Amino acid sequence: MTIQNTLPTFRTVALLRDTIRAWQGQGLRVALIPTMGALHAGHMALVTRALQVADRAVASVFVNPTQFGPKEDFASYPRRESEDAMLLMKNGGHGLYAPTVDEMYPEGFVTSITVGGPSAGLCGDFRPGHFSGVATVVTKLLLQSGADVALFGEKDYQQLQVIRRLVRDLNIPTVIEGVPTVRESDGLAMSSRNAYLSVEERAIAPILHQTLMAMASRVAERAPIAEQEAWGRKQLLTAGFRAVDYLSVRDAESLTPLDTLTGAARILAAAHLGKTRLIDNVGVRPA
Amino acid sequence: MTIQNTLPTFRTVALLRDTIRAWQGQGLRVALIPTMGALHAGHMALVTRALQVADRAVASVFVNPTQFGPKEDFASYPRRESEDAMLLMKNGGHGLYAPTVDEMYPEGFVTSITVGGPSAGLCGDFRPGHFSGVATVVTKLLLQSGADVALFGEKDYQQLQVIRRLVRDLNIPTVIEGVPTVRESDGLAMSSRNAYLSVEERAIAPILHQTLMAMASRVAERAPIAEQEAWGRKQLLTAGFRAVDYLSVRDAESLTPLDTLTGAARILAAAHLGKTRLIDNVGVRPA
Repeated sequence: MTIQNTLPTFRTVALLRDTIRAWQGQGLRVALIPTMGALHAGHMALVTRALQVADRAVASVFVNPTQFGPKEDFASYPRRESEDAMLLMKNGGHGLYAPTVDEMYPEGFVTSITVGGPSAGLCGDFRPGHFSGVATVVTKLLLQSGADVALFGEKDYQQLQVIRRLVRDLNIPTVIEGVPTVRESDGLAMSSRNAYLSVEERAIAPILHQTLMAMASRVAERAPIAEQEAWGRKQLLTAGFRAVDYLSVRDAESLTPLDTLTGAARILAAAHLGKTRLIDNVGVRPA
Repeated sequence: MTIQNTLPTFRTVALLRDTIRAWQGQGLRVALIPTMGALHAGHMALVTRALQVADRAVASVFVNPTQFGPKEDFASYPRRESEDAMLLMKNGGHGLYAPTVDEMYPEGFVTSITVGGPSAGLCGDFRPGHFSGVATVVTKLLLQSGADVALFGEKDYQQLQVIRRLVRDLNIPTVIEGVPTVRESDGLAMSSRNAYLSVEERAIAPILHQTLMAMASRVAERAPIAEQEAWGRKQLLTAGFRAVDYLSVRDAESLTPLDTLTGAARILAAAHLGKTRLIDNVGVRPA
């Protein structure tokens, strides 16, 4: 028995597409896991789920310049492809798609996709152009791969809703699967950006999730939403978060603001801890 | 032998997609011909070409509201589906896709695609939002159908270049084929909008093509481009055209304006004859 010790890595659209088409031609169902790399256990939950719903799992690793603002962390975003490949292989992945920026955006590239609705508000207010960058690159990744299913984490909940809307609106023939957020033992949502945190900041960071959970249980019991939002914001600032971009109870699908809880909702937050911007969210339903 | 006397008509994405997938599963290559209906010999040239490059040819008929401006002819645009089906069947087409507006743009639809580059200028200046409407609906039609190849007329040359760019930029896995303009015996480009012309206007209309041809032969011989554009514009206005939106010599692919002829170019025009806006274009290369 031979053990495969390197993961097939695709650098071009043509190689990715041909490989996936060949698998599909054998009747295999193929999953794509779009990532920006710096893979961690949260991504591996996507791989695990992919292997439950498909026969082949390919992760893409691409730090997409068009979804970063000019003052954001594009240049410093962690890049460690060989570790990513190792982790992916250990977890049963079948391939890594790692295109260059030129392969994704060749000379003359001029197209962009905007998704209204769920893109508005929340991160949409603080990261202008971000979801348009996401929608455009995700469309490309889905159409480049021709994957049957693609998996995205609920950690980026607004992104997930934007992608669901995009795929429905453009009739992209790929099933979108959301996967619950994976957390550290103290509740902090796993994120490649957690590596930016100092020891002190890392000790404060779990308060974000704790605050959301406390709000969720009270909102489920019909505590007034605006009051809970104000409470949560104060809680975060008191704990040492530098600023709260938003902390808001929203309709779980459309992400429109809610005055009262009527059905499935989501509490979403983005807050700054030193130089690091953390996001998190939890679900809530009427009790 | 049975003669099929009705053309299969698909009203839903699901039926279109399933039918085409079944054909592809049998190893057949499928062509889509996106149209707004009111089919004429120009469209039939697309069908004829489709049957040369594919095994099955499906035409879509959808008068797309999002590519019409508020003062344009959306409401009055000719609709005659049963005649379209007959003509398509006679010419060897295998199906008609005629979705409702609700099937294309269900409640909650919020996505739009913009293509820079070739969308700028020309019709882009006079029909704001037009090419975004075209890009969005064409993306949907291509992804709904999963067609192997799609055919578009050179009559709408700027549209063809926008679609080529769009398909390349988003990695849509469909081959785009441009088909030369079909003309009446007097040179007038076939168009569903020619039906709007009065008898007097119809007599003047061929001067558009004649003007473009005269310009092309002189530009090929290195006549100064700006001078030819001015001559052509005057020619049209003198002949009875009410207004000339543009008459311009452009790079054949990028559609950027040209000062001098260096390679493949295109002369494009849009001009109003009474209430009707006519467009046409011809190719030109250095002699």
